[in-house]
Amino acid sequence: MNILLTNDDGIFSEGIRALYESLSRIGKVIIVAPDSERSAVGHAITLSDPLRVKKINRGGKFFGYATTGTPADCVKLAIRAILKKRPDIVVSGINLGPNVGYSVLYSGTVSGATEGAILGIPSFAISLATFTNPNYSFAAEFAKKLAKQILKHKNLPKGTLLNVNIPAVEKKRIKGVRIVKQSGQAIEERFDKREDPRKRIYYWLTGEIIKSDGRDEADIETVRKNYISITPIHCDMTDYDFMDKLKLWKF
Amino acid sequence: MNILLTNDDGIFSEGIRALYESLSRIGKVIIVAPDSERSAVGHAITLSDPLRVKKINRGGKFFGYATTGTPADCVKLAIRAILKKRPDIVVSGINLGPNVGYSVLYSGTVSGATEGAILGIPSFAISLATFTNPNYSFAAEFAKKLAKQILKHKNLPKGTLLNVNIPAVEKKRIKGVRIVKQSGQAIEERFDKREDPRKRIYYWLTGEIIKSDGRDEADIETVRKNYISITPIHCDMTDYDFMDKLKLWKF
Repeated sequence: MNILLTNDDGIFSEGIRALYESLSRIGKVIIVAPDSERSAVGHAITLSDPLRVKKINRGGKFFGYATTGTPADCVKLAIRAILKKRPDIVVSGINLGPNVGYSVLYSGTVSGATEGAILGIPSFAISLATFTNPNYSFAAEFAKKLAKQILKHKNLPKGTLLNVNIPAVEKKRIKGVRIVKQSGQAIEERFDKREDPRKRIYYWLTGEIIKSDGRDEADIETVRKNYISITPIHCDMTDYDFMDKLKLWKF
Repeated sequence: MNILLTNDDGIFSEGIRALYESLSRIGKVIIVAPDSERSAVGHAITLSDPLRVKKINRGGKFFGYATTGTPADCVKLAIRAILKKRPDIVVSGINLGPNVGYSVLYSGTVSGATEGAILGIPSFAISLATFTNPNYSFAAEFAKKLAKQILKHKNLPKGTLLNVNIPAVEKKRIKGVRIVKQSGQAIEERFDKREDPRKRIYYWLTGEIIKSDGRDEADIETVRKNYISITPIHCDMTDYDFMDKLKLWKF
């Protein structure tokens, strides 16, 4: 099995190393990842700058390609230019921090897997729901199990990827796996307005705590209750339900 | 009517000026847009850098705020920090070049409207299907008509925006308006591998011609046949159809 691995925290992150070590036990892992952090890049691709690629060895057998691009660029580059053989699966992660609710739209980690799905390869993104003191070992184990399931069932629809979020608790406290929708909960956010030493105003985006009413059977609540959430995400964003109503408008 | 206007070609582009002039006839237009081009930024937001805002006057009544952020940042900043009053509608465009098929996922223009929808404001993105010699006048007129329809019907679902693509032909050759899905056609692309003067390799993404088999009733074909395409896009990317099958997997 050929596994293409990417992420948005960069090739030197601990999350991608944990994933590399776990997935190496079930296949040949090729890493193509950003040369530094690219968080919240959404599904960005690089059109107006050239991309550069550098071979990296992080010690042991950990060998990969670092690029100057985004996660989506990495997957495109890997498949269209670097790899001799098409991978059987694309895995993106392990992200430091959850990717749930509307954050899915902003996530570089998810976009790496999205690009895999666009290119017709079974893909998943995996994130650990903490920003501090991460322990990636359980998430890395779970990724291995999921990769095997994907290749066994072979029924992921074209253009659909899996978005996985792992609670950041001890293995024994994890209650199980739930297949849930992406939450539509509002994101709590605000801008800190500050003045620099030269008296010029600038803004920092902050306060991204995600609200939840506790009733929603969706990814945010699921992870909070210590279940692993898996959400199938598709690249067709059409709101089919609204099409008939829209046809009644007069143009 | 308060109209918030953004784009991804930047505040100095011709597309946003055309839109400003047309929409000014039906409401008060406030412009918050990137200070330069931000194409293919996907739904990126800026977390690790501060954002700066500068007042711009392009002559006449054209007055706006240029930011160092992406289109999604612009809409967030406008609503959370700059504007005193919540806008009634968010309009993003007019983009130079179509945003159809999987390009919707890469598009900065669409992401400006997506951010509006996430924040609960009726929103649309509008693009002109040419990369050269644009004539924005018909698209700008159409945007005005569409804004009125949105505010008249008031039935855009929460989290749903409209993605509009205008054929780049004379007004009399436009055949009408069609409500269609986002195309799932593959994107033709490749990387040009080049060597810089210092003998180092770099890659350019190129060849983004979108294939079409001509049968698909979706945005790509619709615009190619000289119809205006309108696709309702929603921010919930869950693939509900696949959820039941996924529940049968063993974890």
